[in-house]
Amino acid sequence: MVPGPEDALLDRYRGVRARSEALAAPLSPEDQQVQTMPDVSPTKWHLAHVTWFFETFLLQPHLPGYAPVSPAYATLFNSYYEGVGPRHARPRRGFLTRPSLADVMAYRRHVDDAMARLLAGAARERIAPLVTLGLHHEMQHQELLLMDIKHVFSCNPLHPAYDPAVRDSAAEAQPVRWVDVVGGVREIGHGGDAFAFDNEAPRHDVLLRDFRIASRLVTNGEYRAFIEDGGYERPEFWFMDGIETVRREGWDAPAYWRAVDGDWYEFTLSGLRPLDPAQPVSHVSYYEAAAYAAWAGHRLATEAEWEVAAAALPADIEAGANLLESGRLHPAPAVDAGDGAPRQMIGDLWEWTASAYANYPGFRPEAGAIGEYNGKFMTNQNVLRGGCCATPAGHIRTTYRNFYYPHQRWMFSGIRLAADA
Amino acid sequence: MVPGPEDALLDRYRGVRARSEALAAPLSPEDQQVQTMPDVSPTKWHLAHVTWFFETFLLQPHLPGYAPVSPAYATLFNSYYEGVGPRHARPRRGFLTRPSLADVMAYRRHVDDAMARLLAGAARERIAPLVTLGLHHEMQHQELLLMDIKHVFSCNPLHPAYDPAVRDSAAEAQPVRWVDVVGGVREIGHGGDAFAFDNEAPRHDVLLRDFRIASRLVTNGEYRAFIEDGGYERPEFWFMDGIETVRREGWDAPAYWRAVDGDWYEFTLSGLRPLDPAQPVSHVSYYEAAAYAAWAGHRLATEAEWEVAAAALPADIEAGANLLESGRLHPAPAVDAGDGAPRQMIGDLWEWTASAYANYPGFRPEAGAIGEYNGKFMTNQNVLRGGCCATPAGHIRTTYRNFYYPHQRWMFSGIRLAADA
Amino acid sequence: MVPGPEDALLDRYRGVRARSEALAAPLSPEDQQVQTMPDVSPTKWHLAHVTWFFETFLLQPHLPGYAPVSPAYATLFNSYYEGVGPRHARPRRGFLTRPSLADVMAYRRHVDDAMARLLAGAARERIAPLVTLGLHHEMQHQELLLMDIKHVFSCNPLHPAYDPAVRDSAAEAQPVRWVDVVGGVREIGHGGDAFAFDNEAPRHDVLLRDFRIASRLVTNGEYRAFIEDGGYERPEFWFMDGIETVRREGWDAPAYWRAVDGDWYEFTLSGLRPLDPAQPVSHVSYYEAAAYAAWAGHRLATEAEWEVAAAALPADIEAGANLLESGRLHPAPAVDAGDGAPRQMIGDLWEWTASAYANYPGFRPEAGAIGEYNGKFMTNQNVLRGGCCATPAGHIRTTYRNFYYPHQRWMFSGIRLAADA
Amino acid sequence: MVPGPEDALLDRYRGVRARSEALAAPLSPEDQQVQTMPDVSPTKWHLAHVTWFFETFLLQPHLPGYAPVSPAYATLFNSYYEGVGPRHARPRRGFLTRPSLADVMAYRRHVDDAMARLLAGAARERIAPLVTLGLHHEMQHQELLLMDIKHVFSCNPLHPAYDPAVRDSAAEAQPVRWVDVVGGVREIGHGGDAFAFDNEAPRHDVLLRDFRIASRLVTNGEYRAFIEDGGYERPEFWFMDGIETVRREGWDAPAYWRAVDGDWYEFTLSGLRPLDPAQPVSHVSYYEAAAYAAWAGHRLATEAEWEVAAAALPADIEAGANLLESGRLHPAPAVDAGDGAPRQMIGDLWEWTASAYANYPGFRPEAGAIGEYNGKFMTNQNVLRGGCCATPAGHIRTTYRNFYYPHQRWMFSGIRLAADA
Repeated sequence: MVPGPEDALLDRYRGVRARSEALAAPLSPEDQQVQTMPDVSPTKWHLAHVTWFFETFLLQPHLPGYAPVSPAYATLFNSYYEGVGPRHARPRRGFLTRPSLADVMAYRRHVDDAMARLLAGAARERIAPLVTLGLHHEMQHQELLLMDIKHVFSCNPLHPAYDPAVRDSAAEAQPVRWVDVVGGVREIGHGGDAFAFDNEAPRHDVLLRDFRIASRLVTNGEYRAFIEDGGYERPEFWFMDGIETVRREGWDAPAYWRAVDGDWYEFTLSGLRPLDPAQPVSHVSYYEAAAYAAWAGHRLATEAEWEVAAAALPADIEAGANLLESGRLHPAPAVDAGDGAPRQMIGDLWEWTASAYANYPGFRPEAGAIGEYNGKFMTNQNVLRGGCCATPAGHIRTTYRNFYYPHQRWMFSGIRLAADA
Repeated sequence: MVPGPEDALLDRYRGVRARSEALAAPLSPEDQQVQTMPDVSPTKWHLAHVTWFFETFLLQPHLPGYAPVSPAYATLFNSYYEGVGPRHARPRRGFLTRPSLADVMAYRRHVDDAMARLLAGAARERIAPLVTLGLHHEMQHQELLLMDIKHVFSCNPLHPAYDPAVRDSAAEAQPVRWVDVVGGVREIGHGGDAFAFDNEAPRHDVLLRDFRIASRLVTNGEYRAFIEDGGYERPEFWFMDGIETVRREGWDAPAYWRAVDGDWYEFTLSGLRPLDPAQPVSHVSYYEAAAYAAWAGHRLATEAEWEVAAAALPADIEAGANLLESGRLHPAPAVDAGDGAPRQMIGDLWEWTASAYANYPGFRPEAGAIGEYNGKFMTNQNVLRGGCCATPAGHIRTTYRNFYYPHQRWMFSGIRLAADA
Repeated sequence: MVPGPEDALLDRYRGVRARSEALAAPLSPEDQQVQTMPDVSPTKWHLAHVTWFFETFLLQPHLPGYAPVSPAYATLFNSYYEGVGPRHARPRRGFLTRPSLADVMAYRRHVDDAMARLLAGAARERIAPLVTLGLHHEMQHQELLLMDIKHVFSCNPLHPAYDPAVRDSAAEAQPVRWVDVVGGVREIGHGGDAFAFDNEAPRHDVLLRDFRIASRLVTNGEYRAFIEDGGYERPEFWFMDGIETVRREGWDAPAYWRAVDGDWYEFTLSGLRPLDPAQPVSHVSYYEAAAYAAWAGHRLATEAEWEVAAAALPADIEAGANLLESGRLHPAPAVDAGDGAPRQMIGDLWEWTASAYANYPGFRPEAGAIGEYNGKFMTNQNVLRGGCCATPAGHIRTTYRNFYYPHQRWMFSGIRLAADA
Repeated sequence: MVPGPEDALLDRYRGVRARSEALAAPLSPEDQQVQTMPDVSPTKWHLAHVTWFFETFLLQPHLPGYAPVSPAYATLFNSYYEGVGPRHARPRRGFLTRPSLADVMAYRRHVDDAMARLLAGAARERIAPLVTLGLHHEMQHQELLLMDIKHVFSCNPLHPAYDPAVRDSAAEAQPVRWVDVVGGVREIGHGGDAFAFDNEAPRHDVLLRDFRIASRLVTNGEYRAFIEDGGYERPEFWFMDGIETVRREGWDAPAYWRAVDGDWYEFTLSGLRPLDPAQPVSHVSYYEAAAYAAWAGHRLATEAEWEVAAAALPADIEAGANLLESGRLHPAPAVDAGDGAPRQMIGDLWEWTASAYANYPGFRPEAGAIGEYNGKFMTNQNVLRGGCCATPAGHIRTTYRNFYYPHQRWMFSGIRLAADA
């Protein structure tokens, strides 16, 4: 029998679910237990929470007779959905030594089995969009899992390596080119039938002036020049909130740079490595990105500019991109193909934009608790675009809007310069 | 001899300077000394800081032989201009019992005398723009002085009145009308030669969809209904950061509402008064404004929408507006003239917009320390529009961009609803 | 061959070391990883730190050619000995997912093997006192391990049980008797050759007035009466620092009491159980102990009074005492034998005394880093006496001085009343 | 007519009251308004609070028909007496710009007039003890007023002088002698009929070993040697809580030492002056005092030792002492009279003792709210003895027990060494 689309959905379900477990496989139960700051969640919690999503939004309402493993999980593994009941306080996720990792894996099996029944049943067509949302939700958490475990390991003076294999390149950084983009009334946002999060819609017109965008990300070497020029002590380049953060936190470099005997090293998912000046600078806050741009005499792009610039990319945006599947788990130096297109827009590092995260005109969140997915975060955060080396293929679009607070930097974030025409 | 334009400038200088002192006149030296939170500055400090501005940016560079009263004042009364040297820490402004109020008044005389000499000299034409900036800076601080002393008095269980005269109205709240505004490519921002702050420029095109805007501000009575409907306990109306602020701060009403024996009162610059349901609700944070709008089924306007709607106002926007000169020092109920135009857009209360504060495309801050005036604040804040009952006439424009953090509410802030067409 | 005293020491070494591992055995690697507050250390860290003690103070200086497992352990597992180099920050102990529990167990094996060689060598006589200190240090940590894991499990809404076996008694609380003690110049402190910590010496005279001491600990039932009488809201019973702690922390009952549907339950190492009114009240702070005593019209004993009263106990103080070996892991109701002696002075709960922790007259700390063991903590803490249900037999003496901050209550602490004669 | 003892009481009342006002006289209304940290109270508040004490404990209960100036003052000027009703939060005392200083002075007049009537009436004999308590309370606040305004002025970069007259001495520091004191059963505490605070009683036996006490206070020059020897960075001299305070607060010298261009200056009530190495080191915390003593190879005295040593002082303990009446407002170098007695025990600086503040055996607080005077502070503080240069004559006794937290140092505190015999 030829597999139908429902089988394809089940296959996708299984594929995504299997990858989460593969990503957790190198980690011990202890590694998967720990929360090193409120922003970080334990690996084990990620594995359970994405499962809770399927249980709560798919199995409970749509699979008659579904019996949950434990009623307590509804509270323990709810992240922030006020609409579905109470939740365990975020900064205390790391305290949950029980259920054990083994229990969580059993929970996954239980839900996977039920999902297989659900996807074999009559409801499969009706629920397909929600299943797809659940899979993208899990893919988001795959990236979170990696950036969170990187933070956990960064707090250990032993510098553990998630993946000991180092994939350094001997490449020199290529010079930056400026790519000119013509303004006018342009369209951005998600429009078609393919999957996208609610915050990417509706597709709508924006009005842009001509601008230029850099052909690649800012490198470690360039950023080191900013530091050596006294960048962190010169308030003229910084937002007021930024310079206060720098002073309060004692920042003098990106989050994972470490000075050892006068040389800069970088903590990576392969452990502590000498800083490679050709690699993109990563784990910078918005404040640092904006200060660097001011120091360099340029600026960051708005998210509309970024998306319009990305419209010029080849149709297969993921081809050659440094995404999770590359296995590098680290940004790579840009290689210019000479085709005039900007590099690294997809993958490598999420790129800070100058745009505060807000709804698009005409935005309507989904009804019910699912509608809490995005809209409630639309204050005090900035948009980042393009995915990173920890983003799964199939999970990134040019319309994808990621968002973080300006002071955060434990995610794979980087800097691309822009300028007025 | 007919007075020339320079005399007009000197007259304006004297007028603005005199009003600062008139506003401080009802206050004792003790009243003028106190800082009740880091956001608040003492009255005395305001009087000195605006004087420091003229000394630093006008007298020191442009009046040969100018001798400052004290070199220490350069540090004590610098607010946030990193480019002109060190500054006394903001949360410690209230610790400066010396110089005394009398000393500060002598400092004002000293600078005023020198300014009179400067404005009588050859440089007067060249420096006129900077003098005008200094006067607008002082007018800003006149409003700050009033909102700050309101906070100081609000911390005193005796409920002192800045102005004991109460100007209540017996008006009923008029029904809200919706004013339709046509979208398309519209222009906003400041363009002409008249004074404006750097953040209002350049004038530029924006693209808007058709929308509707409420004819008046939300009233105390309407807001009370939100409270009584459980508004502060229902997370579905709030941004995540908002509901966390509500819980952390224990908010259950606007900043100056006080429950006394089961009735709501409002602390005002005329002391504690029974809450008037017809008056606009004031001293709300952005979080509360947005939550109210969500509860009401509407939204806040963007700043571009607000400005385009304001373009339909009569040319003399200040006519009949409740500004500082009305002497009310409190918002007043809207009176609908039946002309179809929205009321209260100028004066009464600063209106929260949904727009994060950011530079306009092509924004260029002024060179030098003066350029720190606005740009460095362009993170984490939202734009408010339209001035308030403490804003001096001549200091408000439809292009004027005020900005505060979403959690702040000690300023005269209010809510106007908007909706998609 | 008859085993000599060195073999006895090795036997004791092996016995103590084995019990630490037996105590950890019911815990998963995840359970052993977590730190729920700065005061708490992970089980795994305890297992490693007591091993580090032997490595640092015995093997490194006394076993020629000893090769440490990892030089990093010297920093990771140092608790507070400034004299032996840097140390990993205490609140970050829970972040060390590596070394794994398996690594730590291997570390224990490595050190145990080396200790066996050392104890078989020529140095054994000379080092015996230090080995004994190390064993008492490890016994201390056995108690800490239990009170820490109790805190960890108390943060989990699933209420995990360390030991599911519940050993409830149906006993009624017996009435309190008052035991009269004659004052005068009495001796306290440790004097002989047997092991004691440096802070117990020298034995010295104290001058006491006649006093009375209660025959048993205060019970849950008695303490509940204090709560029901408004005890936590009545400042007249409290020290100023105590009432401020109550208000800031929102305390309204002992640390592990939980109100469920109007009834009190108690979280124990056997999970959540209905509060037994006959059991001693446990996990109270000094503030609560002193407030209860004031409410009851009595006071706490000084440590000198406590020790003099304990001098009247039978010689075999551990006989019948509820110590770790009882396996209850919880205080038990007092059973009065009718012999006129106070009960529960040894075991059950550490008893708060009114005495601030300070050196005895003539106190001399040990030379070197070992001297940091006790003296550096002699500020802001109060002395507790008598051991508890988690204290190993052989590790408690009537001269033993334990100490905690007045606000702490995660240890097994209780209340015994005293009064002037 | 010969004045009777009641007139003497009225005279004393007037004398004490007048001195409070004389101490405030050099201060502007602004100076008297400000609170620079929660421990500090505004001068104006001191003036009002001591008045409130007479109103609350004398006039309200004992003067029929007494009409208070304002019922609000009962809350505003209550310090910490829970038993007499609510109180204005301590950290917000500086917010009370109203009542004005003039209002407070009128309040003083009102209460003084009523007190004159009360002291002329039939109740005078019965209330004399309470009046005396009120006068000692006011004398305490005279000292607090001076140490608080010193802190206020220390926060001002202009370094204002409370009293511009500088009374430096050219004296060299005299060598320390050791005074031997014989131990045994000795009596301490207050016994007779003269006034003393409740915490000084009952007089009781203590048991002491022979000891030695230094003939004078530690000097600035000696303390500077401790600093130059790395004292603040060497944990071996510090209590754990002390070294953590040093690190958290960034301490590297006593509270009012200021490094200017490589030289040490000291902020005093006469402004900023070059550090005098012969003067006693002042404004040190208990942590610093104990660390200095450890560095010097000695220790601090217990309060019992201090009091027994003071029993050897001449009967007129205030003769020649540097108390408030000397007008120096600063400690002075010791001058050894060659009589073998220790110097500076009365006046100059409060001397930290090693004793935690606790009740004496048999201590009974006064009944009612007055009983809150002392007992509720008996946790976490240490006893200081001997008065200081800001203590009024007639307010110090050898039995007087002052107390502060170990981290506090804004009072006039100093160090005297002791040693075992």
